[in-house]
Amino acid sequence: MNKPFDLLALGEVLLRLSPSGNERLMRGETFQKQVGGAELNVVSGVSLLGLRTGIISKIPDSDIGTFVKNRIRFCGVSDDYLVYDRDHNARLGIYYYENGAHPRKPRIVYDRMYTSVNKIDCSEFDSRLFDSARCFHTSGITLALSPQARKTAVEMMKRFKEQGALISFDVNFRSNLWSGEEARACIEKILPYVDVFFCSEDTARLTFHKEGDLKDIMKSFTLEYPISVVASTQRIVHSPRKHTFGSVLYSAKSNSFYVEEPYRNIEVVDRIGSGDAYISGVLYGLLSSPGDCRAALEYGNATGAVKNTVPGDLPSSDLKEIQSIIQAHKSTGPQLEMSR
Amino acid sequence: MNKPFDLLALGEVLLRLSPSGNERLMRGETFQKQVGGAELNVVSGVSLLGLRTGIISKIPDSDIGTFVKNRIRFCGVSDDYLVYDRDHNARLGIYYYENGAHPRKPRIVYDRMYTSVNKIDCSEFDSRLFDSARCFHTSGITLALSPQARKTAVEMMKRFKEQGALISFDVNFRSNLWSGEEARACIEKILPYVDVFFCSEDTARLTFHKEGDLKDIMKSFTLEYPISVVASTQRIVHSPRKHTFGSVLYSAKSNSFYVEEPYRNIEVVDRIGSGDAYISGVLYGLLSSPGDCRAALEYGNATGAVKNTVPGDLPSSDLKEIQSIIQAHKSTGPQLEMSR
Amino acid sequence: MNKPFDLLALGEVLLRLSPSGNERLMRGETFQKQVGGAELNVVSGVSLLGLRTGIISKIPDSDIGTFVKNRIRFCGVSDDYLVYDRDHNARLGIYYYENGAHPRKPRIVYDRMYTSVNKIDCSEFDSRLFDSARCFHTSGITLALSPQARKTAVEMMKRFKEQGALISFDVNFRSNLWSGEEARACIEKILPYVDVFFCSEDTARLTFHKEGDLKDIMKSFTLEYPISVVASTQRIVHSPRKHTFGSVLYSAKSNSFYVEEPYRNIEVVDRIGSGDAYISGVLYGLLSSPGDCRAALEYGNATGAVKNTVPGDLPSSDLKEIQSIIQAHKSTGPQLEMSR
Amino acid sequence: MNKPFDLLALGEVLLRLSPSGNERLMRGETFQKQVGGAELNVVSGVSLLGLRTGIISKIPDSDIGTFVKNRIRFCGVSDDYLVYDRDHNARLGIYYYENGAHPRKPRIVYDRMYTSVNKIDCSEFDSRLFDSARCFHTSGITLALSPQARKTAVEMMKRFKEQGALISFDVNFRSNLWSGEEARACIEKILPYVDVFFCSEDTARLTFHKEGDLKDIMKSFTLEYPISVVASTQRIVHSPRKHTFGSVLYSAKSNSFYVEEPYRNIEVVDRIGSGDAYISGVLYGLLSSPGDCRAALEYGNATGAVKNTVPGDLPSSDLKEIQSIIQAHKSTGPQLEMSR
Amino acid sequence: MNKPFDLLALGEVLLRLSPSGNERLMRGETFQKQVGGAELNVVSGVSLLGLRTGIISKIPDSDIGTFVKNRIRFCGVSDDYLVYDRDHNARLGIYYYENGAHPRKPRIVYDRMYTSVNKIDCSEFDSRLFDSARCFHTSGITLALSPQARKTAVEMMKRFKEQGALISFDVNFRSNLWSGEEARACIEKILPYVDVFFCSEDTARLTFHKEGDLKDIMKSFTLEYPISVVASTQRIVHSPRKHTFGSVLYSAKSNSFYVEEPYRNIEVVDRIGSGDAYISGVLYGLLSSPGDCRAALEYGNATGAVKNTVPGDLPSSDLKEIQSIIQAHKSTGPQLEMSR
Amino acid sequence: MNKPFDLLALGEVLLRLSPSGNERLMRGETFQKQVGGAELNVVSGVSLLGLRTGIISKIPDSDIGTFVKNRIRFCGVSDDYLVYDRDHNARLGIYYYENGAHPRKPRIVYDRMYTSVNKIDCSEFDSRLFDSARCFHTSGITLALSPQARKTAVEMMKRFKEQGALISFDVNFRSNLWSGEEARACIEKILPYVDVFFCSEDTARLTFHKEGDLKDIMKSFTLEYPISVVASTQRIVHSPRKHTFGSVLYSAKSNSFYVEEPYRNIEVVDRIGSGDAYISGVLYGLLSSPGDCRAALEYGNATGAVKNTVPGDLPSSDLKEIQSIIQAHKSTGPQLEMSR
Repeated sequence: MNKPFDLLALGEVLLRLSPSGNERLMRGETFQKQVGGAELNVVSGVSLLGLRTGIISKIPDSDIGTFVKNRIRFCGVSDDYLVYDRDHNARLGIYYYENGAHPRKPRIVYDRMYTSVNKIDCSEFDSRLFDSARCFHTSGITLALSPQARKTAVEMMKRFKEQGALISFDVNFRSNLWSGEEARACIEKILPYVDVFFCSEDTARLTFHKEGDLKDIMKSFTLEYPISVVASTQRIVHSPRKHTFGSVLYSAKSNSFYVEEPYRNIEVVDRIGSGDAYISGVLYGLLSSPGDCRAALEYGNATGAVKNTVPGDLPSSDLKEIQSIIQAHKSTGPQLEMSR
Repeated sequence: MNKPFDLLALGEVLLRLSPSGNERLMRGETFQKQVGGAELNVVSGVSLLGLRTGIISKIPDSDIGTFVKNRIRFCGVSDDYLVYDRDHNARLGIYYYENGAHPRKPRIVYDRMYTSVNKIDCSEFDSRLFDSARCFHTSGITLALSPQARKTAVEMMKRFKEQGALISFDVNFRSNLWSGEEARACIEKILPYVDVFFCSEDTARLTFHKEGDLKDIMKSFTLEYPISVVASTQRIVHSPRKHTFGSVLYSAKSNSFYVEEPYRNIEVVDRIGSGDAYISGVLYGLLSSPGDCRAALEYGNATGAVKNTVPGDLPSSDLKEIQSIIQAHKSTGPQLEMSR
Repeated sequence: MNKPFDLLALGEVLLRLSPSGNERLMRGETFQKQVGGAELNVVSGVSLLGLRTGIISKIPDSDIGTFVKNRIRFCGVSDDYLVYDRDHNARLGIYYYENGAHPRKPRIVYDRMYTSVNKIDCSEFDSRLFDSARCFHTSGITLALSPQARKTAVEMMKRFKEQGALISFDVNFRSNLWSGEEARACIEKILPYVDVFFCSEDTARLTFHKEGDLKDIMKSFTLEYPISVVASTQRIVHSPRKHTFGSVLYSAKSNSFYVEEPYRNIEVVDRIGSGDAYISGVLYGLLSSPGDCRAALEYGNATGAVKNTVPGDLPSSDLKEIQSIIQAHKSTGPQLEMSR
Repeated sequence: MNKPFDLLALGEVLLRLSPSGNERLMRGETFQKQVGGAELNVVSGVSLLGLRTGIISKIPDSDIGTFVKNRIRFCGVSDDYLVYDRDHNARLGIYYYENGAHPRKPRIVYDRMYTSVNKIDCSEFDSRLFDSARCFHTSGITLALSPQARKTAVEMMKRFKEQGALISFDVNFRSNLWSGEEARACIEKILPYVDVFFCSEDTARLTFHKEGDLKDIMKSFTLEYPISVVASTQRIVHSPRKHTFGSVLYSAKSNSFYVEEPYRNIEVVDRIGSGDAYISGVLYGLLSSPGDCRAALEYGNATGAVKNTVPGDLPSSDLKEIQSIIQAHKSTGPQLEMSR
Repeated sequence: MNKPFDLLALGEVLLRLSPSGNERLMRGETFQKQVGGAELNVVSGVSLLGLRTGIISKIPDSDIGTFVKNRIRFCGVSDDYLVYDRDHNARLGIYYYENGAHPRKPRIVYDRMYTSVNKIDCSEFDSRLFDSARCFHTSGITLALSPQARKTAVEMMKRFKEQGALISFDVNFRSNLWSGEEARACIEKILPYVDVFFCSEDTARLTFHKEGDLKDIMKSFTLEYPISVVASTQRIVHSPRKHTFGSVLYSAKSNSFYVEEPYRNIEVVDRIGSGDAYISGVLYGLLSSPGDCRAALEYGNATGAVKNTVPGDLPSSDLKEIQSIIQAHKSTGPQLEMSR
Repeated sequence: MNKPFDLLALGEVLLRLSPSGNERLMRGETFQKQVGGAELNVVSGVSLLGLRTGIISKIPDSDIGTFVKNRIRFCGVSDDYLVYDRDHNARLGIYYYENGAHPRKPRIVYDRMYTSVNKIDCSEFDSRLFDSARCFHTSGITLALSPQARKTAVEMMKRFKEQGALISFDVNFRSNLWSGEEARACIEKILPYVDVFFCSEDTARLTFHKEGDLKDIMKSFTLEYPISVVASTQRIVHSPRKHTFGSVLYSAKSNSFYVEEPYRNIEVVDRIGSGDAYISGVLYGLLSSPGDCRAALEYGNATGAVKNTVPGDLPSSDLKEIQSIIQAHKSTGPQLEMSR
């Protein structure tokens, strides 16, 4: 188990551009310039919690690519497995994000077609890559990006699996990238390789045509496939600025469900990436305390809940902060108002 | 009905200066530089929804006047009927606005005396103006600005009316501009020309000495004057950051009242101009679907409610956004959290 | 009573550096540059309400010291009793502050050791200082800073007392500066000089080992020491952005307790300094209407509550604003939504 | 000559993103959000000088497209001939720009492939378009974008020409879009339609293989093609912040060359778009005072020179400002230091 | 000579609004919010150099007035003689300022009519005012504002003179406020009261019809009136960003002219207020070292030159900085690159 | 030579706080928040050029320490040898920097006493540290910080030397940290270990009492000590915004001096760190092409010159940029105006 990385993830890295505060995309004169992407969000969260992580992706060999690379390092994620696209048509995906305020919902505009990551290929990496991590993570977004991205993702899952890595997969269904039917067909082919499976109740019902209550559904995945852990977040959106966030986690091995009180009345600053942050908490738990599903659940819920309170896709909480949030969440006595 | 504009409005355009966030007027080192004014807010809202509008006003022939003109065009409103004041004492009205947070209320400081709009005169416009719009709108603020502004406003109402335009009028009573008695005396003289009448319950009671319940009051205006539609907003200010907003609309023709569930728990970013935005929704409804008072009510409530969530006086929602807000407001099922 | 100052306070003045909005200390590229400090906050609040105040402190003779001096004057506080440290190791204390959002708490990082104020000595001031104010205020923070700061504070309390000044003291216990035991031992020695005593219920119990209900506790201080007024704030932290704030005030002379409805659902922008602002309201009341403890309570609660709604340590409300907030707080009828 | 527009131009509109001041693309956390594009720059300059202009282009039907549309209107350019791309792969071109400071040159990173404008087709416009303007302008950039863009541009030149419009063309050679050989072959085919031809000396030599001195070269184009006016800018780049700017203009009809003293020691703030601004000045001169080539030269040089002093692609000078700059440039006496 | 103030000045205080950097008034979304005014600039410069000063003016009793008052205190100037206008038409003058860059000149737009200062009257001040300062300063701008302002200014000059104050007067001719003829007629009436007279060569020639060389002109004023010191700045505007600044000072008592090498190649950030800063240096010299005209010249030149390098109207240099600038200016040896 | 790092450096890392643009330390409401320090500047420059580097330092275990760590990673420097100070008095050094504009010089205020780095000790590092780099660099600043810092620096030089590392040392004399005499005595003791020696002509004369011309002086160091390369920068400060920068480099082995035309008329944005950037260029040259002193000189001059044009201490140029700057510097033909 003496591998250089605890976690590697494959996915697209995007430039995120947002007006500040409550300004709108169609007005205003500045953008906040940030970096995000479902899998990057996951690894950067795990890295903040103290494990060694890296991102596998392909970005343009340009000043914008360099900015992305620097940001990735800023959050403690290794850039060893970034490959650079030197074609004259190299491009980085962009998304534009605007905050909401009830009754106005947040808005996202994507400009992520034709991007360099769609050309990523296993042949661009030394074969030692596949033996360099204890866990490999990717999501349905990567599968949906393009046939080439899908091919590479599937091959990576297999090759990491062969080298003994835990395979983590988040369905993260996006109807603007593919249809539910396409998603189901593709994902069912890769589920035999998956160890840790993240899937929301809605997606399970709509995409995988699952029926019954949530617990039945979660368990059913482990009956059909050799999945060890299934996790499903539960978010209530009271308004764009107030959410409740919790989750259910199921361990096939112990045939147990894990739940706790959700985090209520979260003061949402930026909801984007909070699902990914949840995954980072769960994976941190599973990788740092193998088998301790309760810890995984608590880390996941806390990391997901607190991400909502900071701007940008990327988490910003280290282990000390997450532990104090968990402690406050579980405490029933008087609480300190501030961290001095 | 083949006129070049759907709606023209007469009113003062002001420069608005606000500290950002929760900073105060008496401190800080920057101002947000915006443009507003009750009637401009109305036409810009209608323009965003897809109709052709213009503003009738008089502004200084200076760089600041040019800024105002550019902003007006930015929001899709025609500047064809802006006239320029080249006098050396030409000035643009200014108002300073500061956000509130409970228990601190929002604050406004006005610097709108001696401004160019107070010299506006019908003789400054080609007589074809009065035949160029399906609807003419102005408010009690314009009547209150100065005798000359009042004279021009009244003359315009008459001349537009002669050319077959619908006349829309918003009482918008401001006690710092005139007394209730002055307001009542003046407005009663123009009500015979008004088709669509906007008046809050408080103003109806305090200024027009109306009694009875709101519905009685609204109807009474149509009995005294040839008004076809009366609309009255209903706002509950829970705190500077949380409002509830709805309205009642009465059609004299069908002798019907129109109401719907108000928008509750609005996450208020900037309340200024939301009443004007409401008017823009109602007028859009009446002009795009003549006679459909229910549509007018729904457009009005949605446009008014959502304006509270964006900074500045001016609305920012196009028809697609307003329709999706109406749909979400009326829906009882699960809702998408974001517009992707 | 014809002294040049109504209130002088001794304490450390700090540079406060905060990321804007919800950005975090460990990220971001700018800081808001502000000035604060428990005693400065108190005098600047009293100055805004209309009395003549000054701060007694020692700051570096550098551009940063000049910035601090200018800010102090900006808020109407006299810099006559600032002394300048020209040593090459002169330094100004700094603290870093980050806003919270539930479930993430606000965070403070201090860098206030070795600062110039720790060298402050009575010998640096003309002896007329002690006869120049109707009231002298300091806090437990000053006592805790260093032996030299404590010695100076104690000496000042005695000398101001000798010259007939009212002595005001706020326990303001900070466990990162000293232990509860140290605090108790030290403060018990100075209580014989104190006229107005500010102490929270928690501190009374934990540090002074008081028992019983809050009223018993408050009264007990006046039985042990010649204290005339004891005040204790009561804050409920619903979340970093929503607090309830009120207080209890006890007058030994009339043996009466004063309370009123707390301010509920305060929309918190920046909680720092609101306790100090409370003290400024109470002292304003006691100094402007001697003996009117109800006025002191109402000024204190209003000034403390409203401080939560503005950024920075320092209050920003003048007398007119505080009076309108008190009036609105006590009113049961309809309220104006805005101060126009 | 009673056409609704004085000038229409076909070209790509791009979102421009720049760090502020001297910050670099690969660092920093904000972007200035601006709009530009060679042909838009030209028409917006002409519009500011007082003529009626519009832009012909295709942009995505998204919030970012709406932002672009609003900005276009802000600068007084008509959006009547913008068509909207509703395909799911619709995208707007982007370019990133970074200021230089000697010895560091300005940098541009383009992300303009696969954009909506590449699908633009004459069939998307009503045929009345081609009779609606006195002058049509486009550039070599539009020809180079894609075969479809080229086809449309060539067809538009022919159809506008048929309807009596003056045809203006700027070579604007960009080696990152096509080779010199491609450019020459393509442009030689359209030169028979061109009336006003903008070409730098370098491009004439390198791309069109012209030889001799600049005047010979300029004249030679009019001998080979029925071009009436040839204009060629002359810029000396002393450093990224100091340029000298002038031009030579040749009229075939009068067989005369027009020159004046160049603008020296220009304090460059943002060089981008200054060549386009030059064209706007020349076209304004030719359209407002047909045949007055000296006026065209003076307007061109002044408009081009002053553009260097404002941030962003787009010009910002109205006729009054340009005339005062021309007057100051030609004056030899003492000058006012400021425009008060 | 034991008066509470060294210098008091009468003049209008304005709010200054400027776009940042090279942005233009007619575009952009923010303003820098600053305070200025010729006489305020003078007293704030003298205050920074270490003397006790105050401003005599009338401002609105509003949040904007409070901002102005706070800023005045920030720069160490007393607000004891500010009077507050509580009329509902009270207004503060505003000016808008835009930086230039060659060949684009800086621009100013004024909005300073109908302002509160125009109502200022001697009766609003306690008569002890006139005995409270060693020197009284005002300028031709104050004389030009309105008949009432002029009456008050003239009366104040006489009454301060009666109480033994030195009278300082700066012509500061502004053709947008009055004609040269009006100015001459008015100023000639007050020159009998003036001790220190500031007048540029251009104004002396154009307004006072002086002839001969500058020295003849300066001397001639002292022959006609009992003026002791005449000072005249000499500025060469190479471009909006590069000036040369110096002056000539004449002492009637010693019949001597004082000059020194001008400051060359000043890197101009903001030229506004540099002439006022010059006056502050001269007055500081004359008040701190009476009779030492060389010191006055050197302080004046240094203070005026360095003001050009900071944003805003107000100076920012203390005595230590001015002295080090004078020393560096006079030094011929190697210089330190930085103040560490 | 197969060591994990090409270069490691020991030194203090500071938080740098600067007002933006030309604002002054004593005014304004924001600070730019940056990170710097002589040795960090060097390693980050080398890292950008493509070698593997790390910084050896001690910083507080706080959010501010975490910010510093993240920034270090952002610029590609390893944080493997950062140690964290968990004492309650841990502090990070700060310096405040203000830009200059002629005749106002840049200003620095230091607050770097009592900082964590002063406690750094070799025992805090695994002994493998000393075998992990091809080159070790430190400066006279580190020697001057405190006795403990000096002891650690000297010990590290010796232990790295023992393990075969090249030792690089920059005198970087700062008179506010120690006297010239102290510096000379201390540095003479470590020169026997130094291979690459950076010393300015001024320091050589004033501190080491060297005489003769620069070349004699540089050579003399290599005669007294086993130094292989001596480098000396030559900067002419025309004004705070215009410098000329070049250097002389001497190789003892070949007994040759290397010079080239200096970079003239550098448009200085921020001079801080340009000397450190020069060192990074020289070290890059020596480490990537051992023995090629001409390359080292050219890399050094280009890297130093271009650093002046970017804000902050840290370099921002990668190898491609430096090579294109060198090429442009050496070229005599026409140059591209921009990097597209």
